[in-house]
Amino acid sequence: MTRPSKRAPDALRPVSLERAASRHAEGSCLVRFGETHVLCTASVAENVPPWLKGSGRGWVTAEYGMLPRATHDRTRREAAAGKQSGRTQEIQRLIGRSLRAVTNLAGLAEKQVLIDCDVLQADGGTRTASITGAWVALHDALAWMEARNMIKGNVLTDHVAAVSCGLYGGEPVLDLDYAEDSEADADANFVMTGQGGIVEVQGTAETDPFSQEQFDALMGLARGGIAELVELQKMTIG
Amino acid sequence: MTRPSKRAPDALRPVSLERAASRHAEGSCLVRFGETHVLCTASVAENVPPWLKGSGRGWVTAEYGMLPRATHDRTRREAAAGKQSGRTQEIQRLIGRSLRAVTNLAGLAEKQVLIDCDVLQADGGTRTASITGAWVALHDALAWMEARNMIKGNVLTDHVAAVSCGLYGGEPVLDLDYAEDSEADADANFVMTGQGGIVEVQGTAETDPFSQEQFDALMGLARGGIAELVELQKMTIG
Amino acid sequence: MTRPSKRAPDALRPVSLERAASRHAEGSCLVRFGETHVLCTASVAENVPPWLKGSGRGWVTAEYGMLPRATHDRTRREAAAGKQSGRTQEIQRLIGRSLRAVTNLAGLAEKQVLIDCDVLQADGGTRTASITGAWVALHDALAWMEARNMIKGNVLTDHVAAVSCGLYGGEPVLDLDYAEDSEADADANFVMTGQGGIVEVQGTAETDPFSQEQFDALMGLARGGIAELVELQKMTIG
Amino acid sequence: MTRPSKRAPDALRPVSLERAASRHAEGSCLVRFGETHVLCTASVAENVPPWLKGSGRGWVTAEYGMLPRATHDRTRREAAAGKQSGRTQEIQRLIGRSLRAVTNLAGLAEKQVLIDCDVLQADGGTRTASITGAWVALHDALAWMEARNMIKGNVLTDHVAAVSCGLYGGEPVLDLDYAEDSEADADANFVMTGQGGIVEVQGTAETDPFSQEQFDALMGLARGGIAELVELQKMTIG
Amino acid sequence: MTRPSKRAPDALRPVSLERAASRHAEGSCLVRFGETHVLCTASVAENVPPWLKGSGRGWVTAEYGMLPRATHDRTRREAAAGKQSGRTQEIQRLIGRSLRAVTNLAGLAEKQVLIDCDVLQADGGTRTASITGAWVALHDALAWMEARNMIKGNVLTDHVAAVSCGLYGGEPVLDLDYAEDSEADADANFVMTGQGGIVEVQGTAETDPFSQEQFDALMGLARGGIAELVELQKMTIG
Amino acid sequence: MTRPSKRAPDALRPVSLERAASRHAEGSCLVRFGETHVLCTASVAENVPPWLKGSGRGWVTAEYGMLPRATHDRTRREAAAGKQSGRTQEIQRLIGRSLRAVTNLAGLAEKQVLIDCDVLQADGGTRTASITGAWVALHDALAWMEARNMIKGNVLTDHVAAVSCGLYGGEPVLDLDYAEDSEADADANFVMTGQGGIVEVQGTAETDPFSQEQFDALMGLARGGIAELVELQKMTIG
Repeated sequence: MTRPSKRAPDALRPVSLERAASRHAEGSCLVRFGETHVLCTASVAENVPPWLKGSGRGWVTAEYGMLPRATHDRTRREAAAGKQSGRTQEIQRLIGRSLRAVTNLAGLAEKQVLIDCDVLQADGGTRTASITGAWVALHDALAWMEARNMIKGNVLTDHVAAVSCGLYGGEPVLDLDYAEDSEADADANFVMTGQGGIVEVQGTAETDPFSQEQFDALMGLARGGIAELVELQKMTIG
Repeated sequence: MTRPSKRAPDALRPVSLERAASRHAEGSCLVRFGETHVLCTASVAENVPPWLKGSGRGWVTAEYGMLPRATHDRTRREAAAGKQSGRTQEIQRLIGRSLRAVTNLAGLAEKQVLIDCDVLQADGGTRTASITGAWVALHDALAWMEARNMIKGNVLTDHVAAVSCGLYGGEPVLDLDYAEDSEADADANFVMTGQGGIVEVQGTAETDPFSQEQFDALMGLARGGIAELVELQKMTIG
Repeated sequence: MTRPSKRAPDALRPVSLERAASRHAEGSCLVRFGETHVLCTASVAENVPPWLKGSGRGWVTAEYGMLPRATHDRTRREAAAGKQSGRTQEIQRLIGRSLRAVTNLAGLAEKQVLIDCDVLQADGGTRTASITGAWVALHDALAWMEARNMIKGNVLTDHVAAVSCGLYGGEPVLDLDYAEDSEADADANFVMTGQGGIVEVQGTAETDPFSQEQFDALMGLARGGIAELVELQKMTIG
Repeated sequence: MTRPSKRAPDALRPVSLERAASRHAEGSCLVRFGETHVLCTASVAENVPPWLKGSGRGWVTAEYGMLPRATHDRTRREAAAGKQSGRTQEIQRLIGRSLRAVTNLAGLAEKQVLIDCDVLQADGGTRTASITGAWVALHDALAWMEARNMIKGNVLTDHVAAVSCGLYGGEPVLDLDYAEDSEADADANFVMTGQGGIVEVQGTAETDPFSQEQFDALMGLARGGIAELVELQKMTIG
Repeated sequence: MTRPSKRAPDALRPVSLERAASRHAEGSCLVRFGETHVLCTASVAENVPPWLKGSGRGWVTAEYGMLPRATHDRTRREAAAGKQSGRTQEIQRLIGRSLRAVTNLAGLAEKQVLIDCDVLQADGGTRTASITGAWVALHDALAWMEARNMIKGNVLTDHVAAVSCGLYGGEPVLDLDYAEDSEADADANFVMTGQGGIVEVQGTAETDPFSQEQFDALMGLARGGIAELVELQKMTIG
Repeated sequence: MTRPSKRAPDALRPVSLERAASRHAEGSCLVRFGETHVLCTASVAENVPPWLKGSGRGWVTAEYGMLPRATHDRTRREAAAGKQSGRTQEIQRLIGRSLRAVTNLAGLAEKQVLIDCDVLQADGGTRTASITGAWVALHDALAWMEARNMIKGNVLTDHVAAVSCGLYGGEPVLDLDYAEDSEADADANFVMTGQGGIVEVQGTAETDPFSQEQFDALMGLARGGIAELVELQKMTIG
């Protein structure tokens, strides 16, 4: 079996993380997983959601969007449609949960960091690229806050990164691009920490159900890919 | 460790599936997972979504809702709020995907079955109860169609059922109720077929990331619970 | 003339009021007018609407909904449509006004009771069943408040119940089911107290206008039917 | 008892009906019930709602609105709020039903007349003034259609007009203005035809329930007032 | 060249400004530019927008609407559509800016004046008529405030009025009605003060771009027309 | 007077036009006016708006958006807010009109080009940068269509570009950045063709009204700036 992308089954696409990609945001990262490009910004806010007022705890949340022509065919602009799609809401909730899993909210002292992940160009894996890049933006925003004594250190407890895997032609492959994803029999997204802990697992059978062995193989591939992504995050902020 | 519910770690709550729970729907099922009660109806429609017109294929889709006082504290009515929450959209997309995974859409001949899962009372596990009960409603609606020669047989290719698992006090337990879910360290939902194939996996670390071993234990528990639920489905339609 | 339902012109359908139908609500009632089934819950809230803040007065309000397949053909889910229909708003305003007519709002002491009437199955007369069942839910919620010293007694000043009447085949009949309502020449809803006072009257000519005598006959039938419903309420809470 | 308006209990406010109040509409009427001023226009459309396509029948429907400062205190503009209130929807549904009660829809031949009732200034009774004026606008639009051979005669089968009554200081009075309505114990709106047939009755107890005798007295007053309004309609179109 | 309206190129339509056109508003003006009729009301509010709280400054803002049958063909009601069109929002923002340009907001002392411009009948130039009439309504509302010592004098610093110009048949003409506007090659709206200062200029080429000379000619016509409108305002309030 | 940007009064910021900035769009351009960066894409669609069906004419339209953190402080995401602001709608209407002014719609043969202008980073002048860059995207999309024989040549009749001018410290300056715009006494946007024809003029006095002479000076500056931008467009596509 040859992947459309010619990559080895366990090969990531070329990945880059470009810090300080936005003039205004307290932290930002332009992440590229091959032809998938996402601009991640982290904005520091003085207020927390109502249910946290007086709790002493802070919050990290995320919003996700795609430019209308990020996709092969133009997608309707959500602002013009008047609402965010179910898919958009699923993804932004996932990004937020993933980042909170490595954030000590009690250390955020009733401050909030809002992450925006906006897909400039899409070629599969936008949610996993978003999480991986958003971590860099969050890291830099927390550093910005620390430099201003808004927080003390150790708010960020670990790295977090994400990658997709799938069964393509029956075989497990890592980091599907759009062409591969469209043909895959199964699609799974994994979010893990720098220590290798599992934060989120989302697996979906597209056509036929998959077996325990297949799922284990996907998770094994993901573990390797995420370790590479965490290394790249370390080099980026290093 | 003792679960708040006093159940053994691998014990489901008392589950019941009551067919023909609605006078009007072509198929229906009132499913109870303990104190979680969901009314599932299946409505046959002559039309398919626009993108399937002329394809010869049919469609199965789902909507989900909760009565405002299904929950411990009253939740705002989504119709009054003017939109469905992200959580609602995630769940109804999951129910639809799960049912389509065991439906031969080509056999549905440009007809559509719309599943409504409405939670009358909630005590944890509403999405897994919905999937388990919706399968019965779908089964009966397809039988209704077959009796009227709208479709030929074998549209439904297998059973599908779902259950949640979680780490409670560090230990894997099956089918969390609300009290257990609120205290759980991790929460995962599994959707599997009668043959044991995996359709959907959704795992989320609530506080600390979990390990591969913990995740495998959750999946093992789920496999046993889903086998019981499938047996109950068989008895219900038998 | 024979009614489709074979009932005598002045006969109600079999009516039942099932208290404590919801595990979570402070008061609740599952009301059945024949095949019309409505789950009524009453939720106690600590806050009142803004215009009552500081007034010392409380508030009772209602929301109404129908499950999509409560009806013969599936109705679009209002939460998915993004708004409540004009019909829904009319009905929920009517329920709220009817209950407030027998509530001493000054005795509610800046607390609020929110009534939810959700139609599980519809066969005509959903608004009158809702009012009749909602009174029981309200009664029990007020008892719950009194038991906790949130209010003193005598907040509920009387019973309130409702029934529809119509001209079917030219003849006045009580409590129309869906088949009768579809064929009726006129349709009227009456809301009255236990003392026989009139709270709301809504009469509509469907085809030809009706006369004063016809309207008086409808009201006479309603008076008898509502007296029966009030008796049933008394037995239910008794 | 003296009414704030000094009128006799059975006295209407000064009423005027000004035809052709709009340059563009096929029929129009500026109706004044004292200081309540409503501009009613009737617009002829070639299309009918989807459910009437191919039926040969036409349709009459209505929309209602209030200018934001028609009221004593400014009311939020519904277009800015993004939705019509429940009150607005109730009123526009009532206007449409009232007009359809005197229209032979089969004679409208798959044409539609859309009535717009916009309150320029409000002082109580806006819905009854709207119905009374809308009848003139509809009459003139139908005449316009007849002159162009779009319909044959006799589409309008009778007059229809409306008035409110209430209990003020315990006594039945006709045609309440805002000051009277605010203090009334009960409020009822009556819609009747030129022949005296009842089209709609809506009675609401504001504080205490009212008796059968009180309700009969209100209807008697309404009958007299509506007869006067019908006379005025006849003079207007004469 | 003859204009459809037979007017000289530099002739306004007959213009009238009718003060106190609303019983309830603190200031109001029914403005007529020929067959274009706009009811302008000014409502005084005790509150300012959030961003001005504590600033000591007040605010003037505007909303704009058209009755559905103000136009030749009926336009969909924005309240029913659930949102204001882009055109509506452009116009109401323009009205607000124009009035604020001649208001000393610091003198408004955290009070707000809300202007509503509602087009009862449209024949071109609704935004320019709105601005011209709204100034009168604002003037009278400020006088009302001054009489109650809510503000001190000199809040209104100058007159402001507006007119449209266009190229019709290649020739510059003043104050286009609908028939002229539909055929015009270019359309420009000018807002100027009593002193002749320019507040807003909006010019749009409908078909071919226009030249500097053409634009200058349009502005010259506008200057003359606005001077006439300001004279009329002076006579109206004088 | 020295501008905050140290530029000469008639100096543009460094401007760049980067073609083919999007992998998927038929035409695209990343335009930079200093620190203002806008991604413009042109998407070819086979359908036209309903009112053009059967007319033989095509259409060009535009949508505009800003990433939430394109601005100094984060702006609420319009898709999350559920609607586009009035400002957004004004700008996207302006972009569409400007491009249509140099497009022969009859030559577009019932095809449509949808322009998306998304601001990645904002520092003043986003609408003028959008128009200038969108022209390049439109040009390339039309070339793409021509290469596929979807249209014949000469659909694009001229260049179009735009720039802002303002009075800063009383003196006319070209191409205001955010710091200058915030302090400007007046702000005007000009859209002109390659031939020097005026397509749109929008001038607004921020504090005091401005004079004819001042406005003429702004237009003179704009004419020079736009000539430079058109030269850059020519080099870009050359």
